[in-house]
Order: sequence, then structure tokens, then C-alpha cells
Amino acid sequence: MTYCVATLLDTGMVFLADSRTNAGVDQINTFRKMHVFERAGDRVLVLMTAGNLAVSQAVAHLLHEAAVDPHADSVHTAPNMFEAAVLVGEALRTVHQRDAAAFKDHGIEFNASFILGGQIRGELPRLFNIYSAGNFIEATEDTPYFQIGEAKYGKPILDRVITRSSSLAEATKCALISMDSTIRSNLSVGAPLDLLCLRRDALRVQTHRRIAADDEYFRMIRSAWGESLRHAFHALPNPTI
Amino acid sequence: MTYCVATLLDTGMVFLADSRTNAGVDQINTFRKMHVFERAGDRVLVLMTAGNLAVSQAVAHLLHEAAVDPHADSVHTAPNMFEAAVLVGEALRTVHQRDAAAFKDHGIEFNASFILGGQIRGELPRLFNIYSAGNFIEATEDTPYFQIGEAKYGKPILDRVITRSSSLAEATKCALISMDSTIRSNLSVGAPLDLLCLRRDALRVQTHRRIAADDEYFRMIRSAWGESLRHAFHALPNPTI
Repeated sequence: MTYCVATLLDTGMVFLADSRTNAGVDQINTFRKMHVFERAGDRVLVLMTAGNLAVSQAVAHLLHEAAVDPHADSVHTAPNMFEAAVLVGEALRTVHQRDAAAFKDHGIEFNASFILGGQIRGELPRLFNIYSAGNFIEATEDTPYFQIGEAKYGKPILDRVITRSSSLAEATKCALISMDSTIRSNLSVGAPLDLLCLRRDALRVQTHRRIAADDEYFRMIRSAWGESLRHAFHALPNPTI
Repeated sequence: MTYCVATLLDTGMVFLADSRTNAGVDQINTFRKMHVFERAGDRVLVLMTAGNLAVSQAVAHLLHEAAVDPHADSVHTAPNMFEAAVLVGEALRTVHQRDAAAFKDHGIEFNASFILGGQIRGELPRLFNIYSAGNFIEATEDTPYFQIGEAKYGKPILDRVITRSSSLAEATKCALISMDSTIRSNLSVGAPLDLLCLRRDALRVQTHRRIAADDEYFRMIRSAWGESLRHAFHALPNPTI
């Protein structure tokens, strides 16, 4: 399983991905699910992947390959983020064409989803959620975040605290709390985490860190947030029963 | 959809169910998902249902019918909670035998799950989770709660605050917070709610209330909990990014 979350703020974007993959509980591995395409000063794009790992890796491979081919349309040449999202969808459809029949023969679901976010010079930062069929939606003014993978455990805190006017630091803190709730409830989501922050108009990566389970700030969040919840819980009056 | 949660405590049990059903977003209705079988002084059993409404209602019907038949084995005559859970599983298998082929013809999944809890004189309170196949598991010392239906949004708070030594009032408060998180995130879960509390060894219902969306305590919980979360969130130090 996977959990990835990205927030789109007035001041920039925050991306957080776990790195655990599993093909059954006896086959758990660590794979990076975050891919960064950066041309400092011109564009920075971040792709996060969920679903079938072979499909996600094949899509990332096609995108990376095109990005270094001077004759190909790629995320490095796309005129805007919308066209970049189209390229991700097309790469996914290419993989589908190659693999879907074999998947069907083996009873495997063709299942992949992506978050693509970033900024290309001349545009504001934009955020997309790309589905298995290669179609996608874009975050609007009312949508400060997208999630893929095991989204439910970590959604309530996002709904309650994240708005477009949240700061990058607040959105990072919230993404880590959301990840913590997910990790506690689903064994197949786990550290290390990939955290990436972009400041609006910087057109380069602001922060890109790998957060291990023993990371000091993440450990503080994990214990302090549980403690805060218990404290808040006990502070509310009990019902009469 | 549905959300039901039951907690098993040293001092008794708390059951909470929503009442919204939907067959598509244009067909939303209110149906009671909690059924009570009480013989004060001898036993009290609570059944909560999730999944296909026709299946759940058929199972409840068979159980209620048997309960008033002096010649039938029923939840009123079962010597212990385990045998009562067997009866629920058997009722479900009877419905499966009648309906499963037709469901298959129409491409409908045969999908139902139940929480059965309560106490029969001579035993401690016991709690069971019954699956579509009629098999079931029982809560043990390490398991203070079971959920059925849309369980994920409301799970983190249960994991963080409920233990066997929580009071009935605390468990009620926690169940309502867990329900609130679920209602906020899934439109197909909604009030009115059915709340029921049992005190250990009372062998009768302690509290059984229908909680409407405008219930004073629930409204307080809904607004105060969100406020507490935001407060706790902002009180934690921000990361350096």
C-alpha cells in the first residue's frame, strides 16, 4: 500500500510520500514513490505514485527517458502543467497498452494513480490527480490537497486544518500528522518518508528530505500529537449516560 | 454506507450506529441499523448491521421471528453469547441460500457484516464481529472495540483513547467523536444516530437514545472537537523547512 498527500497553498506546495510497498505481508520493501523533475529557474515538477509498483515504475521510467531525450515532448518541455499532466496520462496509457492484457490473464488489476504538482515559469503552481485511465482532475480554489493510496485514516486532520492560506510549515506539520495516523492504522504504509516543499515562484526545490522513523521532529510529532489528542479528549465534558 | 462501532469495557459496553442508507446518491434513506433483544435480568443483546440492507433486514427478521417462537432456538434461548453469534451466522447463511444466486445473476455483491454484543446471565459481556460467510471473531482482552462499515476515518481516535478501563461515558464520547469524523468525510454516513449503553451485570439496557443532528451534546462535540484539534495542531511546534 501507499500513502501520498500533496497540498497546494497560496505560498507554495508540500508533498509527502511513504516508501513501503508490499506484495503480501511477507514481501515488504522500500521503494521511492516520489520523482522530481527540476530545471531550476524554469520549472519544478513532483510526481508521486500509488497502485501497482510495476506500472508506477514503468510510467516514471518513460517520463525520465523522455526528459533526457532532446527530441521528445517531456515534462521538461511541456509549456504548462496541464500539458505535463497529459504526458503522465499518456505514459500511463502506453504502459496499459503493453501490460493490461497480460494483467487480465493473470487476474491482476491494472491499478495506478498519481499526484503531479509543481510550477512552470509563467504559471501559478498547479496540482493534479491522475487516475488509472490516464484522465485527471486539477485542484481548484476550494481544494487545498489531494491524496492517493490509503487516504482515509489521514483525511480528517487535513479537512480540519488545511486551507490555501496555511503556511508551508503548517502544511508540512499537518502532512506528517496525517501520515502518522495512516502509519498507525495500516501496516503496509511506512517510513522512510519523502518530504518535498516548493515555494511559489522559486522554481526550484526548497526542501527535499528523507525522514526516517527515528527523525527527531517526526518522533516529536508522533508522540506529542497522540498526547494532544488524549488531552483534548479528556478536556471535553463527558455525556450523561 | 454505514458506520457502527461497539466498545467492550471493564464496566460495560457502548454501541453506536448511524442510520443512513443509500442506493446511489439520489436514493438516501434512514433505516435503523441497531436491533435490541432484551430480557431484563436474564440477557441483553445488541445487533448492529452493515452492508446490503435487504440482507441485513432479512437476517434481523429471522432473528426477531425466532425470538417470539417458543419452539425455536433464538437469541432469547441461547445459553451463551457464542451460541447467539452462531444463530446470527446461521440466519445469514439462510438468507445467503435464498438470495445469493439471484444476487449473482444481477451482479450484486452479497455483502453483510454484523456486530453482536451483550451479556447473558452467567457470563461476562462479550462482543463479536460476524462476517458475510456467517463466520465470526470475538473481542479479546487486547481488543476493546469492533467497527463495521466505513471504519477508517473514525479509527485513529479509537486507537488513541479507548482501553478496556475507559468508562462508559468516555467510550460514548469517543464513539461520538469517531462518528463525527466519519460523517464529515463520507456523505453516506449520517444522523440520526442510535446510541446504546449497557452496564456490566445489569442485564438490561442502561441508555438507549436516538441522537438527531441537532442534539445538544453531539453538536457541542462536533464543534468543540474540531476546535480542540485545531488548537492542538497550532500548539505543536512547526518544522523548519
